[in-house]
Amino acid sequence: MEQPRMILNPVPLTAVTIDDAFWAPRQRVNRERTIPWIYRQCKETGRIDAFRLDWRPGREPVPHIFWDSDVAKWIEAASYALATAPDPALAALVEEVVSLIARAQQPDGYVNVYFTVVEPGRRWTNLRDAHELYCAGHLIEAAVAHAQATGRRTFLDVACRYADLIARTFGRGPGQKRGYPGHPEIELALVKLYRYTGERRYLDLSFYFVDERGRAPHYFDQERQARGETVSIFGPAFTRMYTHEYNQSHRPVREQDRPVGHAVRAMYLYSAMADLAGEVGDHGLAAACQRLWKHLVDRLLYVTGGIGAGRHNEGFTADFDLPNETAYCETCASIGLVFWAHRLLQLSGDRSYADVMERALYNGTISGVSLDGERFFYVNPLASRGDHHRQPWFDCACCPPNIARLIASLGGYIYGQGADEVAVHLYVQSEARLRIGSQTVTVRQETGYPWDGRVRLTLGLAEPAEFTLKLRVPGWCPRARLAVRGEEVPLELERGYARLRRTWRDGDVVELELEMPIERIYADPRVGADSGRVALQRGPIVYCLEQVDNGPDLAALRLPREARLVPRFEPDLLGGVVTLVGDALRCVVDEDGLYRTHPPRLAPAPLRAVPYCVWDNRSPGEMLVWIAEAAAV
Amino acid sequence: MEQPRMILNPVPLTAVTIDDAFWAPRQRVNRERTIPWIYRQCKETGRIDAFRLDWRPGREPVPHIFWDSDVAKWIEAASYALATAPDPALAALVEEVVSLIARAQQPDGYVNVYFTVVEPGRRWTNLRDAHELYCAGHLIEAAVAHAQATGRRTFLDVACRYADLIARTFGRGPGQKRGYPGHPEIELALVKLYRYTGERRYLDLSFYFVDERGRAPHYFDQERQARGETVSIFGPAFTRMYTHEYNQSHRPVREQDRPVGHAVRAMYLYSAMADLAGEVGDHGLAAACQRLWKHLVDRLLYVTGGIGAGRHNEGFTADFDLPNETAYCETCASIGLVFWAHRLLQLSGDRSYADVMERALYNGTISGVSLDGERFFYVNPLASRGDHHRQPWFDCACCPPNIARLIASLGGYIYGQGADEVAVHLYVQSEARLRIGSQTVTVRQETGYPWDGRVRLTLGLAEPAEFTLKLRVPGWCPRARLAVRGEEVPLELERGYARLRRTWRDGDVVELELEMPIERIYADPRVGADSGRVALQRGPIVYCLEQVDNGPDLAALRLPREARLVPRFEPDLLGGVVTLVGDALRCVVDEDGLYRTHPPRLAPAPLRAVPYCVWDNRSPGEMLVWIAEAAAV
Repeated sequence: MEQPRMILNPVPLTAVTIDDAFWAPRQRVNRERTIPWIYRQCKETGRIDAFRLDWRPGREPVPHIFWDSDVAKWIEAASYALATAPDPALAALVEEVVSLIARAQQPDGYVNVYFTVVEPGRRWTNLRDAHELYCAGHLIEAAVAHAQATGRRTFLDVACRYADLIARTFGRGPGQKRGYPGHPEIELALVKLYRYTGERRYLDLSFYFVDERGRAPHYFDQERQARGETVSIFGPAFTRMYTHEYNQSHRPVREQDRPVGHAVRAMYLYSAMADLAGEVGDHGLAAACQRLWKHLVDRLLYVTGGIGAGRHNEGFTADFDLPNETAYCETCASIGLVFWAHRLLQLSGDRSYADVMERALYNGTISGVSLDGERFFYVNPLASRGDHHRQPWFDCACCPPNIARLIASLGGYIYGQGADEVAVHLYVQSEARLRIGSQTVTVRQETGYPWDGRVRLTLGLAEPAEFTLKLRVPGWCPRARLAVRGEEVPLELERGYARLRRTWRDGDVVELELEMPIERIYADPRVGADSGRVALQRGPIVYCLEQVDNGPDLAALRLPREARLVPRFEPDLLGGVVTLVGDALRCVVDEDGLYRTHPPRLAPAPLRAVPYCVWDNRSPGEMLVWIAEAAAV
Repeated sequence: MEQPRMILNPVPLTAVTIDDAFWAPRQRVNRERTIPWIYRQCKETGRIDAFRLDWRPGREPVPHIFWDSDVAKWIEAASYALATAPDPALAALVEEVVSLIARAQQPDGYVNVYFTVVEPGRRWTNLRDAHELYCAGHLIEAAVAHAQATGRRTFLDVACRYADLIARTFGRGPGQKRGYPGHPEIELALVKLYRYTGERRYLDLSFYFVDERGRAPHYFDQERQARGETVSIFGPAFTRMYTHEYNQSHRPVREQDRPVGHAVRAMYLYSAMADLAGEVGDHGLAAACQRLWKHLVDRLLYVTGGIGAGRHNEGFTADFDLPNETAYCETCASIGLVFWAHRLLQLSGDRSYADVMERALYNGTISGVSLDGERFFYVNPLASRGDHHRQPWFDCACCPPNIARLIASLGGYIYGQGADEVAVHLYVQSEARLRIGSQTVTVRQETGYPWDGRVRLTLGLAEPAEFTLKLRVPGWCPRARLAVRGEEVPLELERGYARLRRTWRDGDVVELELEMPIERIYADPRVGADSGRVALQRGPIVYCLEQVDNGPDLAALRLPREARLVPRFEPDLLGGVVTLVGDALRCVVDEDGLYRTHPPRLAPAPLRAVPYCVWDNRSPGEMLVWIAEAAAV
C-alpha cells in the first residue's frame, strides 16, 4: 500500500445485476421478508412514529437514544433494494418515512428525536454515550442511499442541512465544540456525502472528527465533568467497564496499532480512516490502517470472520483470546469488517483484504439472519450447547437493519474499476455494466460459487478495447487454472489477482477454475481455545456441526486426522448447500464419573458438517465449529 | 445413606494437634500473617469501627450490608486459632471486638450495623438481597467458635439473644414473617448453636428456614412488591439476572435435584440440609442432599474442587459447562463444598464424600491464599493468560476470612468417631485425643502426605480396648497395603475405608501404604472445554503448568500420551512441593497466520508441573491445568 490513494473504485450496486444461486435468493428474502419485517418492528415499537415528535413525559415507550439509527438503516436498506428491484409499495413507504423525518428537522437543521423531545436541553452534552452523532451518521448514509436510488434530493437536503449544522457546531474554530462521536459512524457517512455532493466541507468535517479523536485534554473527560456525571447513562456496570479504549479514543488514531474496545465502533472508525486515506493520499492514516489490520487478522479474527470476543465490551480482548462458546462476534462487527476490508481493498488492490471480506460475507455476517429472513443473531458464537437462537427483534436493534443493508448492497462489493482495469473481487453470478473509455462494457459472470469453483466471464463490448482484467485467486485456493478464449494461459498473479491485459473483443470468454478441496484449518497454536481442534472449510465456506445431524454431545466427537471427508451438494437442504460427510469417531459417553484415569473410548460415528452461515435454521440444538481431533491412541 | 442419622461425629479441632509438613506451616502463616492482615483490613476499611454505630448520613464510607459478616468470620477464624495455639495479644483483640459487637446489640437483641445506622427503619424488608440473616448467621457461628475457644459465654449470649429475636420474628405463627434468607448461612449456624447450647428452638428455627424456602406464594416476590422495588439494590444488571434459582428458592428444598444458582448460597444451604438430616434422621432432606450431590460431582465439579462456572451468577451453569479460563470457582464456594462434603461424610461414612472434600482442601480452597498469607483469590480459574493475580483485599471481602477460618479449623476435618469406631478421613501428621469407653485414646499419625502415601498410626491406650479403626483408602489410590503390628493384613474395604476391628493395645502400630502414581485425568467427554486435554494429579494434588517454569504460550504445549513424567520433591520450591517433570512437545509458534491448512509442527519441550494450590506465588504469568494431548501424527 505504498500509494494510499484509492486505486480502485467499486462498481456501484446499481450497475450490477445479481442472479446467483446463493445470493439472489438471499436478496429476494431480504427484500420480501426482512425489510418489511424490520419496518413492522420499527413501526410497532414506536421507532418510526417517534419522528412525529409528539412524545410527552410520562408516556411509554420513551424514545431511545439510538432509535433514529434503526429507522435510518431501514431506509438505507430499502433504498439499496429499490435501486436494483423496483417496488412501488416499498418506495411509497420509504417516502412516507422520509417525509416524517424531514418534518422532524428543527429550524436550525437538527434532527434527533431523543434530544428534541426527551431531553431537549441536552443536545451535544454526552457525545460519549448518547449516540447523537452516530444517529446523524446513519441519517446521512440513508440520505445518500436514498438519493442514489431515487435521484431525488428530498432526504439529501435534510441530511446536508443537518451536516451543515454539525459542521458549524464542531471543529477547532472559535466557539466550536472540540468533540467527536463516542460511537464512530458519521465519519464514514460524511465521506459518502462528500462523494455524492462534491462538497469538500463534509470531507473536512470527517477529517476533523477522525483526527481530533483521543487528543489531550480528553474531550470525553471534560464533557463528563461538565455533566457532573458519576454514573453513565448505561448504569454502574458500564461506568466501571468504561475506558477510552472502549471507543478508540485512548490516543490519536494515527498512533493506534492494535484494535481495542467495542468492535463495531472500531470498524466504523477504521473504515473512515481508510476512506480519508484514499481520498487525499494520507500516508499516516493508511499506515495506521495497515498496522491495525495486520494485528486484527493475525491475532483477533475468528475463522468465521467474526470479531470481538468479549461480551463485557462487545469488543476486542487479549491477543489470541478467541473462545468459541462465549464468542461475542456481533453481527454488526463482521459487517463493519466487510466495510473496512472493502475500503482497504480499493486502496491496495490486494487479495488479502478481499479474502477477509469474503470470509466475513459468506460466514459471520449472513449467519446473522435466518433463511426465512425474520430472525436475527446479535451474537454469533462458534459453539453452542443448544441455547442460542435467532430472535425476532432486539431492544438494541442495530443488527437486523445492518444485515439488511449489507445484503441489499452486495452488488457493490463484487467488482472494482481502476484507471484502465477491471477487478473481479467476488465470484457471484451477475452482470456488471462498466464505463470503459467511451463505451459501456458488460461483464457477464457465470458460476456455481461458493459450491463450485468454476467461473466463466463473458465480455460484451461495442468495439474492442485494451484494458486489464484482474481476477482474484482466493487465498484459500491451492490451485487455479485460467483460460482465455478457450486456451489455457499461465497464471500471472499480482497481489493475488490473476492479471490479464488484452485488447478485449465482444464475446471474449475468460474461464477460471478454482480448485476447492475440503481444507482442515488449524489455528495458531497460541489460540488456546482451538488447540487440538480443527475447523473445516471448503472454498470460502466455513462449516460447523449441528446436533440435528450429528446427535447431542458434539464435544464428544473426534475427527481423526486421516478421516476422509467428501462434499455432497444437497439441493433440498437449507436452500441448497454442499455438506461435508465422512466417518469420524465419538467418545463413548458413559457414567464413569466426571474425571477418570482412562482416556475416552472411541467408537465410529458418521459426521455431517453444514455451512456455519445456515446453522440454527432447523431443530434447535448444539453447534460446533472447532472439532477435536483424535489424540494418538 | 439408608440411615440419615449422623453415624460419625467429627473429632473437634481442640482435640487434634497438627504437626504436618504441609498444613502446619499454612496454619502458622494463617495465625501469624493472615488473621492479623484481615484484622488490619477490617480496621482500616471501617468494618470494625462501624459497630460503634456512630455513622451519620453523608459520611464515607457507608457501612455495607455485609460488613458485619467479615468481622464475624475474622472472630471465628481467630477463635479457632486461639483454640489450638494460645496468643494473648490476639485473644485481647478478639475480646475488644466482641465487646464492641455486644455494645452494638439493640435492646431487643438486634445486631446489624447497616440496618441500625444506615437504614434504621428497614429491618427485615429485603431478606432477598440485604444479607441481614446471613450476617446474623456468621455472628452466631463466630459466637459458638468463641465460646468453644474461650469457654466464656460473653459473645454467645449476644448471639442467643439475637437468635431469640429472629425466632420470634420468623415462623409460621400469628404475626410472624414467613421469610427466609436470600443468602443461606444462618441455617447451619443455628444447628451449631443448637449443638452447643442444647436449645431445641434453634434447631426448629433452622428447620423452619430450610423448609419454608421456595414455597408459594413466593416470599421474595411478596417482599419485593411490598418494597415497591423495580430495580434491585445491586442495580439493573442484577435485576435482569435475578431468578429464584439464584438463591435456591425456586422450589422447596426437598424437591430440588440439581444444584443451581449462586454456588456459595447453594453450599451453605445444602450443608444445613445435611446437618438437619443428621440431627433428626430426616429422610427427605438426606435424599435431596444425595440427589444434589450426585448431580454436582457428575456434572458440575471442577477437577480442582472448584464449583460455580458462571461469573454472571457466581454460580452453576449448564451441565458439563466447565470452561477453564473463565471458571469463576469462588474460593468461598469450594470452602462451602468442604463444609457440605464433611457433613455428608458424617451421615454416611462413605469415602466418596471425603474424596471430594480432600480434592477441594488440597486444591481449590487453599489456592485462595498466597503462601505469604496476605494475598487472596476470589476467583480460581483453571487457566490464565497471565492477568489473574491474588489481591490484598476486596470490597466484597468474603473470601479472605473464609479461607482463614477453614485453615484454622482443619483439625476438625481429619478424624471422625462413631459408636465404637474411629475413622481417619484425612492423612495429616497429627495427634488426636479421643474418648473411647472410659479412657482417652490417642491416635498419633505420621505421614509425609500429600507428597508420600505412607501413613503410620500409633495408638496410645491406658488399657486395651476393642473398637473399629477405619482408614480411608482414597479414590485416587490404585493400590494400598495395610499392616497391623508389622504384619500385612488384607484390605477389607467398607464404603472405601479399610476396616480394622481389634482389641487395640497401647503402642499398636497400623501402617497404610497408598500407592501414589502420577495419574493422567480425563474429563467426561461431554466436557467440551477439556476435550483432547489431560490434567495431572498425584495423590490428592492437582497440578498445573506455570509460565515461569514452561515459558509463555502454554496453549502451544502438547503432552504425548506416552510421555513419561516423574515426581521430584523440591524442598526449596514453594514451601517444598513435589513437581512433575518430563518431556513434552511444543507447537512451534510461527507467523504463518492465524489460520493454516497444516497442523502445527511439534518440537521437544521439557515440562514442569507444580501443584495448582501454589500457583501465582512466583513471577506472574500464564497458568494451565488441562494440557492438550498430542494429536495423532
